[in-house]
Amino acid sequence: MPSNKALQMKNVEAELQKLEAKFEEYKSMGLNLNMTRGKPCSEQLDLSAELNTCLAADDYLAEDGTDCRNYGGLDGIPEARRLFAELLEVPAENIMAAGNSSLNLMYDNVLRALLFALPGSDKSWSAQGQVKFICPSPGYDRHFFVTQSLGIEMIPVAMTAEGPDMDEVEKMVAADPMIKGMWSVPVYSNPDGIIYSEAVCRRLASMKTAAADFRIFLDNAYNVHYLFPEHENKIPEMISLCAEYGNENRIFEFASTSKITFAGGGMACIAASTDNLNWIRKHMSAQTIGPDKLNQLRHVRFLKNAEGVNQLMAKHADILRPKFVLVLDLLEKNLADCPECHWTRPEGGYFISVFVSKGTASEVVRLANECGVALTPAGNTYPYGKDPDNSNIRLAPSFPPLDELKLAIEVFCDCVMLATLRKLKQ
Amino acid sequence: MPSNKALQMKNVEAELQKLEAKFEEYKSMGLNLNMTRGKPCSEQLDLSAELNTCLAADDYLAEDGTDCRNYGGLDGIPEARRLFAELLEVPAENIMAAGNSSLNLMYDNVLRALLFALPGSDKSWSAQGQVKFICPSPGYDRHFFVTQSLGIEMIPVAMTAEGPDMDEVEKMVAADPMIKGMWSVPVYSNPDGIIYSEAVCRRLASMKTAAADFRIFLDNAYNVHYLFPEHENKIPEMISLCAEYGNENRIFEFASTSKITFAGGGMACIAASTDNLNWIRKHMSAQTIGPDKLNQLRHVRFLKNAEGVNQLMAKHADILRPKFVLVLDLLEKNLADCPECHWTRPEGGYFISVFVSKGTASEVVRLANECGVALTPAGNTYPYGKDPDNSNIRLAPSFPPLDELKLAIEVFCDCVMLATLRKLKQ
Repeated sequence: MPSNKALQMKNVEAELQKLEAKFEEYKSMGLNLNMTRGKPCSEQLDLSAELNTCLAADDYLAEDGTDCRNYGGLDGIPEARRLFAELLEVPAENIMAAGNSSLNLMYDNVLRALLFALPGSDKSWSAQGQVKFICPSPGYDRHFFVTQSLGIEMIPVAMTAEGPDMDEVEKMVAADPMIKGMWSVPVYSNPDGIIYSEAVCRRLASMKTAAADFRIFLDNAYNVHYLFPEHENKIPEMISLCAEYGNENRIFEFASTSKITFAGGGMACIAASTDNLNWIRKHMSAQTIGPDKLNQLRHVRFLKNAEGVNQLMAKHADILRPKFVLVLDLLEKNLADCPECHWTRPEGGYFISVFVSKGTASEVVRLANECGVALTPAGNTYPYGKDPDNSNIRLAPSFPPLDELKLAIEVFCDCVMLATLRKLKQ
Repeated sequence: MPSNKALQMKNVEAELQKLEAKFEEYKSMGLNLNMTRGKPCSEQLDLSAELNTCLAADDYLAEDGTDCRNYGGLDGIPEARRLFAELLEVPAENIMAAGNSSLNLMYDNVLRALLFALPGSDKSWSAQGQVKFICPSPGYDRHFFVTQSLGIEMIPVAMTAEGPDMDEVEKMVAADPMIKGMWSVPVYSNPDGIIYSEAVCRRLASMKTAAADFRIFLDNAYNVHYLFPEHENKIPEMISLCAEYGNENRIFEFASTSKITFAGGGMACIAASTDNLNWIRKHMSAQTIGPDKLNQLRHVRFLKNAEGVNQLMAKHADILRPKFVLVLDLLEKNLADCPECHWTRPEGGYFISVFVSKGTASEVVRLANECGVALTPAGNTYPYGKDPDNSNIRLAPSFPPLDELKLAIEVFCDCVMLATLRKLKQ
C-alpha cells in the first residue's frame, strides 16, 4: 500500500469523516442523474434534424431505379452500401446495408453460425459441441449478453494499450477448435477507448486457428467517432488484411450510423467476404424480404458521402469533447491521489474506463446509486458480469448536460474515495 | 372426363392448333410481365407519399416523452402500439410495435421457440425432438420457407371454404406432442382469400393439443385489406378467444402496415398474451436495443388511427378492385369451360388462387414463362414446393398496370388451355 499516490494512514480518518458527511448531503439532494449508457445527447441528435425532412414526397427511387417504398433488395440500396464502403474502406459489393440495429445483425449472425455451417466447415457451430468465444475484457456488455444468451462459453482475455493480449489469444485459438469466435471493437474500444495497433491487427489476421470456421466479430461502432480534430484512428482494413494471410473469411464486420445520425433510427451494415455474404444471404432470405430502404435513402440524401459524415462527426466532437475533458479533469483533480485508481484517456468513442481500488467497484456503484447517480453496474464490462478484480467502472459522459455531468462525476469521485478509504480502514 | 364443362374431344384438335399458333405469336412478342409477387403498385404507394414528409424536423417526441431519435424502447412507442391495438382489437399492452418486416418477427419467433422454452414448458422445442408444424395448404410460400429453413417438418392440411380442415387439425394436434405450431392467415388467406369462419376460429381456440407449448402463428397480414366497400371480414379476436377456452398463450399474432403504407418501409407488430410477450422481451433484449421509433411516429402521424387506416384502405381498394375484377372476368371468359379448372373469388387480400387441370400447373407456369409472363412457380403454395396435385397457381394482380395485367392473364389463360388440351390429347 505505501506508494507515492497513497494517502497517509493518519489522514484517512479525517478524510473519511469529511466524505461521510458529504455523502449524507448528496443523499438529501434528491439527485436523479444517469451515467449508465452511451447515448447521444439531444444536442447531438439535433445535428441530424434534417434527416426527418430531407426526403421529398416524390423522392423514393434509388440510383438503380429501385422503388425504395416497395418490397425487395436484401443487400440494401447501392448508394447506402457505397456510403458504408467509403467509411469502412471495403468494396461496396462486400457490404450489406440493413436496418436500424447493428447489434441485431450481430446477434442474428452469431445465431446463424450456431445453426448453419459456415464457409470452411460442413457442420454448424452447435453441431460440433460447446461453442466458445474469446472476449477481450473489459468489453461491451451487450456483446457479452449476446453470446451468454445463446449459450456460448465466454473466455475473457485482458486488454492491453494496443488491443487484446495477443499472446493469449494466439495460444488459445491455436489449441482449441471449439473457440469459434471473438468479439472485437478495434477503434476506440468499449469501454477503454483503445485503438488496436497494426501489430495486433496483423496478428489477428494471420494467427493460426484450430477451428476452420473461426470468425472475428469486428464491431467497428466507433470507426469515425473521434473527439479531437487531429485524431489518428486508422487501423488496417481487416477483411483484406486477413485475405493477405489466406484467411479471407475470418471477419464479420459491423457498423452503423447510430452514433452518427439517430441512435434509434439509423442504418446498420455488415461487411464480409463474398463467401460470407452469400452464406448470410442464403439464410437471411428466409428471414426477411429486405431492410427499410427509405431510411437508407434518407441517410444517403442527408449524409451524402464520407466527407459529409466527417463534417458531421466534427460537430459531434465539438459537443462531446468538453464533456470528456470535464470528466478527465475532475478525475485528475479528485482521484489523482486515490490508491490503485487509474483511468483511460480516450481520443474517441463514448466511454471513459475507470479502474478503482480492487474489490470496491460494486460498492462505488451502490454508493453512487444511493446518491441518485446511476452508473453502469460494476462487472458489466466483463463476461457474465464478473470483473475478477471488482475494479472496472464504465463512465458514459455523452448524454447528461455539462452541469449535471459535473455534479454526477463529483459524486462519483467522492464515492470512489469513500469506498477506498472505508476499505483502507478495515 | 365427360362433364358439362368438358370440351368435346372432336373439338380438341382444332382448338389445340389455334392455341399453338397463338402461343408462337406470344413468344415472338418479347413480353416481360411479372405476376409473381403480391407487391403493391406505384399508384398504391403514392397514396402514402405524405409519409416521407409528415415528420417536421422537431417532431420526434412520443406521447410519453420518449425521444424517438435515441436508443431504447423494445416495445415500440405507445401510440404505435395503440394503432395496432385498434386494428387488431387487442389491448395495446399486448402489442409490441417493431421494424419494417412482420416476416422477420415470425422467423425470429419460430427460431426463439426452437431455442428457448416457451411459457408452459421447461424445454425448448428443439430439445424435445423433431419439431413439426401444421401448414394449411395452399398457403404462403414464405411461411413454408421459414419453417423449412429452420428444419421443421411441415404437415400440409387442406383448406376448405371456411379455413383449414379442422377435423384433420384437431386429430393431429391431439395425437402428436411434437406438433408445436401451425401457420395461419385467418383473413383473406394467402393465396385463397378465405376468411376463417367463427366455427373454425372456435375450434382452433379450444382444441386440445398434446403439446403444452403449441402455438398458432397467426399472420393477420390482410386484416384490413378488403376489396369491396360492403366487406365483412371480421373474425373473432383470437387471443381472447383462446383465453376463453383456457388457452391464453396459444396465439402469436403478426401484422404490419406493409400493404397499408410502404411495403418495404412500414412497421410491423406482434400481439400475444402477457406471458408470451414477456418471454419475447426476455430474449429479444439480447438481440436489439429497440425498433426504429421514428418510423413508428411517422406512421402514427400519417395514419392517425383505425379510421385513418380505413380511409386509406378504401383508396387501395379502388385501385385494386378493377384489377381483381379484370382477372376474374378474363378467367370466367376464357376458362369457364376448361376441364377441372376453378378459382377463388376473394373479397380481399392480394391473390387469386387458380386450380388448373391436375398435373399441369408446372407446365402452365413453364409455358407462360416462355411467353415472357413470370408466374409464381407451381407448387410454391405448398410445403416443400410440392403440390400433390400439381394444380394450384397463385395469381398476384396488384402490381402490373391494367393493360399489362390484361395481356398477362390472356397469355396465362391460353397457356392453361394449351396445357390442358395437350394433356387431354395424350
